[in-house]
Formats: sequence, structure tokens, C-alpha cells
Amino acid sequence: MVKNCIENVRRKAPLVHNITNYVTVNDVANALLACGASPIMSDDREEVEEITSICGGLNINIGTLNQNTIPSMILAGKKTNELGHKVLLDPVGAGASKLRTDTAVNLMKEIKFNAIRGNISEIKTLALGSGSTKGVDADVADAVIEDTLDSAITFVKAFSKKAGCIIAVTGAIDLVSDGDKCYVIRNGRAEMSKITGTGCQLSAIMTAFLIANPENQLEAAAAAVCAMGLAGEIGWSNMQPGDGNSTYGNRIIDAIYNMDGDTLEKGAKYEVR
Amino acid sequence: MVKNCIENVRRKAPLVHNITNYVTVNDVANALLACGASPIMSDDREEVEEITSICGGLNINIGTLNQNTIPSMILAGKKTNELGHKVLLDPVGAGASKLRTDTAVNLMKEIKFNAIRGNISEIKTLALGSGSTKGVDADVADAVIEDTLDSAITFVKAFSKKAGCIIAVTGAIDLVSDGDKCYVIRNGRAEMSKITGTGCQLSAIMTAFLIANPENQLEAAAAAVCAMGLAGEIGWSNMQPGDGNSTYGNRIIDAIYNMDGDTLEKGAKYEVR
Amino acid sequence: MVKNCIENVRRKAPLVHNITNYVTVNDVANALLACGASPIMSDDREEVEEITSICGGLNINIGTLNQNTIPSMILAGKKTNELGHKVLLDPVGAGASKLRTDTAVNLMKEIKFNAIRGNISEIKTLALGSGSTKGVDADVADAVIEDTLDSAITFVKAFSKKAGCIIAVTGAIDLVSDGDKCYVIRNGRAEMSKITGTGCQLSAIMTAFLIANPENQLEAAAAAVCAMGLAGEIGWSNMQPGDGNSTYGNRIIDAIYNMDGDTLEKGAKYEVR
Repeated sequence: MVKNCIENVRRKAPLVHNITNYVTVNDVANALLACGASPIMSDDREEVEEITSICGGLNINIGTLNQNTIPSMILAGKKTNELGHKVLLDPVGAGASKLRTDTAVNLMKEIKFNAIRGNISEIKTLALGSGSTKGVDADVADAVIEDTLDSAITFVKAFSKKAGCIIAVTGAIDLVSDGDKCYVIRNGRAEMSKITGTGCQLSAIMTAFLIANPENQLEAAAAAVCAMGLAGEIGWSNMQPGDGNSTYGNRIIDAIYNMDGDTLEKGAKYEVR
Repeated sequence: MVKNCIENVRRKAPLVHNITNYVTVNDVANALLACGASPIMSDDREEVEEITSICGGLNINIGTLNQNTIPSMILAGKKTNELGHKVLLDPVGAGASKLRTDTAVNLMKEIKFNAIRGNISEIKTLALGSGSTKGVDADVADAVIEDTLDSAITFVKAFSKKAGCIIAVTGAIDLVSDGDKCYVIRNGRAEMSKITGTGCQLSAIMTAFLIANPENQLEAAAAAVCAMGLAGEIGWSNMQPGDGNSTYGNRIIDAIYNMDGDTLEKGAKYEVR
Repeated sequence: MVKNCIENVRRKAPLVHNITNYVTVNDVANALLACGASPIMSDDREEVEEITSICGGLNINIGTLNQNTIPSMILAGKKTNELGHKVLLDPVGAGASKLRTDTAVNLMKEIKFNAIRGNISEIKTLALGSGSTKGVDADVADAVIEDTLDSAITFVKAFSKKAGCIIAVTGAIDLVSDGDKCYVIRNGRAEMSKITGTGCQLSAIMTAFLIANPENQLEAAAAAVCAMGLAGEIGWSNMQPGDGNSTYGNRIIDAIYNMDGDTLEKGAKYEVR
């Protein structure tokens, strides 16, 4: 019942602390508001522990990471662990530079995450970079499509088990696993990749879903993925002649804003493997 | 005549220096352009004094404050005082962390502000935090609604007198006082709280209104509040099926862009107490 | 054939590294996606050389520059030179502070740019600030309009020769020169100045055009200017009653997204002098 997951977010209105990049931060804030949560952005080391303490959870996104924000991520993340709050990692660009890979891997060592969400390339980087290749076959193809689905599911399950948290790999087909089960989700549209930040928005929303559904973590994470993908479908159906990626981005957030539990339940396209 | 206030902004096109957060900064820039002003964003300590010198005023917003930008706020603010420029404080999140409360309180000590704009919780934090409780009853309710209006007006007037500047408290009902008079403003819509940054935009616009109306400061600040609220009403009236908070945000800035003096005069809903 | 220039961008999908300001960065990312390129934003000194190495080129924009990002600009720029990648400078606000002027001038000394794009005031500041007044008449008027066109063309050609790169001056009339020839472009609308960031978007897009058209640099830069201006015209033609600068901004990016080679070829208004 993914329906309950979004309804719990709207009912509980969780406050989500975000240490995130400055590229997509405005859309992240509006996406959180759209799904019924509330955003706080704060990345100075002097206040992140205090800010995260008043929130229900923390969304760490390493896009535009820098020397000032990396220590803040560690501090805030450790504090969430201490408090039993939810904490999610979005390893944006892991693999693109040593700094990003090392930071993501180090964050995984220092902080016990509830979930990690990225594209297949980022998640593979973490699987390799964290020295977890034993038992995890990271030699999975670079795109999760029907042809590569089986090996991708095996990979995601194995890495989830190894990492000890939910792993969400988003792409043409989305996979969300807790090591045991794997949601295979077929919502969304290819055109979403022509908008900056839909992944960042999803990570923030997923954090809100995890906070609001403490007893149903895997389904909550999967429901967030379904909601984002479905919003991409609804937003696209509202496109007018002349509209492009900028307007499409607005319509996706609008679709989240207007999405009720029944719409999500009816529109979610997933199977559990 | 709030009409004159917006017309003066459009006629004089004041340049507004903003040291502001990276979450809503793009909307702040577009909102300033929409009302006829021009934005400059700059927060490095090596240039803020020079940048603020070529502007008509400064908008200091402590959302996403950090160790680098706090000294810049002080330097730029002191320079505006030296030059007799307008300077406004938006104490975003005061009360949410010691860093924010201390920074806001310290800014009030170091800089003589022309106006401070925040929600009731932020403004109460300043009233308490600045040790100004003597003579200021900060025990006002957490929302300014009809039931709590009288005590809120008393509080805002007292704090304005104590702080020596205009205090604007925005919420369900907005209050703008110079210690003597208090504008009670009933423009706006509840849905505006589902968009990130309408408060930040208002602070920037208010700075522009203060600059362009040097002989009419209280009315200028109140006119900015009316304009933002009215834009929220006009923007809402333009909503189409499927629109949500993202599109609503655009329509509000659009409404400011299209607002002339007569529209503001006719649409402004206020009384002076 | 400006048509080929945009078609090459869509076909090659160049990855563009941006060290840019936090005001307009989201629109910069979406504008790059709209024209068929891919954006990466990264400004930490520990990773910029590595990030720029995997890209086709670098767009350096000094809006909201600070002590942390200035060294990153130098490092990344030098690396692009080493690798033979394209690199463009957008000297936002040069002339408004010593820090901005000095930084822009210093970047020109340390890095061999392929192109510099700014408004007439910024470009004049560089011409004077870099001590290149000998042989360059910077005493050109502050706006490039029909009346001042001849002297502006002379100035831009001379400065381009001196600087050793393409110079693009955008305004009422746009000029793009390699020192030898000068494209005089009459696309665009005055209302574009009421949106923050159209200049920043153009600089990013121009970088993508330069990367994708290595054998046709001047025409590529001019084609980017035509594309942005034409998008401003198409976006305006799609405006509805009640729309303002915020929606206009979205429609411009939308128009880039939908622009094919034939539309650009037919809509581009330029002469070569």
C-alpha cells in the first residue's frame, strides 16, 4: 500500500534537514513542500548538529561538496545516528572525482545510513570504492534496462546487504532493495533526465517518506520512487505546445503537490522480486 | 497611498545589495526585477563594502549563513550605516540554532537596521535574545490571527520601539510597525507557505521600497507587504487545473511584475492601529 | 550555417564544467540541458582539475566569486589550457568592485581563454584593466545601439585582437568578434533584462557550442548568441495574459529545448562586418 506512505508524509509533515548542493536546492525545497514535508537547509559546522536535532531526518547530497560542507555532513550524520533519526546519502558524482568518491565512501564508514540513492554508476562506484567487491558483483551493466535487469537486481540486493541499508538505483527502471526484497519500478519518463535535479528531489522526498513511515522502510523508499516517477508521467501529460524542460520541471513538482494516496496507489507500477 | 510607494520603486529602479541564502536567491533576484528594482548578490568580505556602496540599500538574510558570510554581513551592514543607506534584516531561522540566534542578535548590536522582517517566532526570538524583554512582552501567541491580534500589535509596537526600527511580522495577518503606528494587513493566501522563499522575496522587495521612499518609511514597508500578499492573491486567481506550488511560485513573481500602482492601491487590505 | 552549430551540440552532447554563481546556477544547468549539452557544477579546489578533465570545456563565471572559488577558477582554467579544452570567461560585475576587476584581469593573465562574454561595461573594464588601452579604444558608449555601432565594432575587434580570443558583447545589439570579423546580431528582446541570468545561461551555452564546433569557433559563438536571442523572441510570443518575468524565464529555456537547426537558421538575424 504505497498509498499509506504518502498519506503519512502529508499527515505528519516531517521536517527534513538538507545538506545539499546549490544547483538544485530550490527545487529540493519546493519538492519537499509539495509532498507535505518541510525543508531546512543548513550546512555550517557550528549549527548542523543542532539543526538536525530538531528535524526528523537528514538528506546528505554531495553535489557541489566543498571543504566547509564535508565536515558538516559528518557531524550532522553522526548526530542523526545518535538520535535515531533517519539519514540518507545521495552520492552525486561519485566516480567523477577522487574527492567525491572518497567523501561518499568515508560518509558510509562514519555514518550508518538508512538509505542511499543514486544512479547505477554512482552506486557501482560505492560498491567498488568501499572495498565491498567480495560478495558484490559490481560488474553490472551501466544502464538498468529489461536486458540487464536480473544481474542488476542481484547486484543491488548484494550491495544492500553489504552496506546494511536500503539501496535505491534510479534510471530507466528503478530498483529499491533492502537486501532481501527488491522493488522493480517502471514509473517515470526518459525526458526527466533533461531537467536538472529530479534525482536530488527524489532523495529529499525519500528522506521524508522514511521519516513518516518508520515501520515500513522499504515500502516507504519504493513509494517515494513511484511518486517521483508518476509525477513525471502526470507532469508530461500536462505539457502544452511550446513547453520544454523548464516548464516540465515545474509541472513535476506541481504533480507531487496534487498527488493524493489514491492517485499514487493507482499509478504506481512496480513488482517485488 | 501605497500606490506611490510602488510607483517610486519602478521610477527610481533602486539597486539592492543582497547577502542572502542560496536556497531562494534566484527568486529573490527575479522578485526584485519584477518590482522594478535591480539585484546584486555578493558575499565575499573583500568586496561587500564596495558593492554595497554603489547600491541604495542592503538586504541581509541569514538563511544558510556560514563562517564566511557572517563577517561579510557585519562589514556590509556597518558600511550602509556609514553611508546612510537602507539596511534590512531577515533573521531566517532565528531560534532554530544558537548560531542563528546569536548572529541575528549580534547583527542588531553592530548595525542600525531600518527594518527587520520575519515570522512571529523569529521576531520573538530576537525580542528575547536581545535582552529586550523589559518593556516588551514576548509572550505573544505563535500565530497572529484575529484572536491574538491585540496582544500581537502591542508586542510588535513595543519591540519596534525597543529595537529602534520598523518591525514587520508576517503570517496569517501581517503587522508592520514603527513603534507608534501599526499596519494590520490582510492580504495573501495560506498556500503561499507551500512555496519556499516568499518571505525572502518580501524582505528584498521591502528593502527596495524603503530605498525608493525615503520620506515615507513605514508606509513603504507596509506597501511592500501588501504588494507581496496581493501578488499571492492574483497569482492564485491565475491557477489552472494541475498547477501546484511550483507554478504558483512563478505566478506570484509574475503578478508583482504586472502590478501597477492602481492595482496595488485597490487590492491592498489594511488598517492602521 | 548557424544551423550546423546547434545540431553539432545536440549530436555530440558535450559535458560542460561550470564554476559559476549560486544565483542563476539552476537555470544555467537547465539551459545546458535544453540545448543538448550536459552540465557539471564543481568549485572545490581539490576536485576541479579532475572534474574539468572529464569535460569538453569550462565556463568560468565570477558572479558571487569568493576566496574559496577564485583559486579553483585558476586551477581549473590552467588545466583546460593544458588539455586543449575550451574555456570561457563571464566577467560578471567586473568594474563593480576591485575584487571582481582584479580577478577577471588576473584570470585573463593566467588562462588563455577561447572566449569572453559580457555586457559592454564589463568588457570595457577588462579592456582598460588589463592595460590593453594601447591600440584599444575603450572610450566606446555604454550601450551598443545603431548610433554607436561603428565605434563599438571597432572596439570589440581591437580588444579581441589584443586579448587573443573571441569577444562577445551582448546588449541591445550583440557583437561577436575574433578580431578579424564581427558578427552583428539583432535577435533578442529588451524584456530579457528583467530576468536574472539570461547572460549566465548564454555563457554556458556558448561554451557548449564552442566545444561541439572545434573548426568553426567564431560562428559557433555567434550561433549561441543568436540561439539565446531567438529563444527570447519565441518565449515572448508564447506569453499569456498575466505572465511576467518568472514565466518568461521558463519559456526562454523551453524555447531553447525545442529549437532545431532549421528554426535557428531561419530566425537568426545577423550580418558579418
